[in-house]
Amino acid sequence: MSQATLTISSRNYSSWSLRGWLLCVMAGLDVEERMLSVDDPSARAELLLLSPSFLVPCLTHDGVKVWDTLAIAAYLDEITPKAGLLPAEVKARAHCRSICGEMHSGFSNLRSALPMNLKAHYPGFKVWAGAQADIDRVTEIWRDCLDTYGGPYLFGALSMADAMYAPVCLRFLTYDVPLDPVSRAYCSTIAQWPVLQQWIEAAKTEPEELEELDAEF
Amino acid sequence: MSQATLTISSRNYSSWSLRGWLLCVMAGLDVEERMLSVDDPSARAELLLLSPSFLVPCLTHDGVKVWDTLAIAAYLDEITPKAGLLPAEVKARAHCRSICGEMHSGFSNLRSALPMNLKAHYPGFKVWAGAQADIDRVTEIWRDCLDTYGGPYLFGALSMADAMYAPVCLRFLTYDVPLDPVSRAYCSTIAQWPVLQQWIEAAKTEPEELEELDAEF
Repeated sequence: MSQATLTISSRNYSSWSLRGWLLCVMAGLDVEERMLSVDDPSARAELLLLSPSFLVPCLTHDGVKVWDTLAIAAYLDEITPKAGLLPAEVKARAHCRSICGEMHSGFSNLRSALPMNLKAHYPGFKVWAGAQADIDRVTEIWRDCLDTYGGPYLFGALSMADAMYAPVCLRFLTYDVPLDPVSRAYCSTIAQWPVLQQWIEAAKTEPEELEELDAEF
Repeated sequence: MSQATLTISSRNYSSWSLRGWLLCVMAGLDVEERMLSVDDPSARAELLLLSPSFLVPCLTHDGVKVWDTLAIAAYLDEITPKAGLLPAEVKARAHCRSICGEMHSGFSNLRSALPMNLKAHYPGFKVWAGAQADIDRVTEIWRDCLDTYGGPYLFGALSMADAMYAPVCLRFLTYDVPLDPVSRAYCSTIAQWPVLQQWIEAAKTEPEELEELDAEF
């Protein structure tokens, strides 16, 4: 597999960087990371808007440039179909893409109220009603998947859906969000995922040059 | 091709309904429309949040349920690969998915400042700076595609990208947005797309039961 470059921003704050990186690792891509400075206006916009941009995450590989998280997943699934980023069965695959799409375009209240911050922990954090509706929908999605496919991951084995929802699991842990037992168990499973642990460890040692940005959240 | 059902909401206001419907028509699906009443809380939420929901658009076909616009496109591309929803060449395909992803997750200022309203026309409409930045990025995307692939559609022939950006073209026409010549020509091309004309005509005769909703925009 030829060399790939993935542009990411903060490991601690950028959930879209994390998703893109997880997908590359799952696909077995030999990926060189390019860190965009948080002083870069586009990186700041990505972090403050809590949405992906055309700069982060961005994958270049074999002359192909692809800069949206779902597009990265689809590209990786095409070039490494055996990595199992998508379930094999057509109905499960449509289901997987649907919930990945929901994560990609929705849950804006959850994103703004509970921004990813891997260095932090807020026991007893008060969640407002708008974000709670998003949390309820996320856990409904998870329970439906875990019940339908039997766990421990959303579609049985690891898939791109787990990469898409991993930052949500980490937020639920950071902000001490009360969860039903099934959703809590899923969050624990994801938190123990070794490659995710590797990202978290690196995030915790990331220089804290983001005080100002942090204050803007 | 077996019968499919597509759940949509307002033809006049719901850009995600339009995108889902265009994709089904492009794939040649024999699709029965199910209109969700705008009094339905989920339909209202979809329209007011200006984002897709898990109810609109939703496609059921051959026992498969798929409810996100990009997921619908991916499903349709799988079952009707000859429809050309995605470009054939890997690099163009990655490019197409990237700009579809940007439309799917981004441009929130554009969506909220210029909501789709096919019955309306606002000559000289004043666009605020936040929405202008989105407009600038959209037209940058278009010029890049039209220059790279030669037009008249974004990737030469019609693709899912045109379905994703069609509501943006219609907004630019509704709100009289000043455009560079290349982007203006692309909007005209899309406005003349026969299946889109068919949707617009139906939207114009749609009963106006949305006064209250309209006022909330």
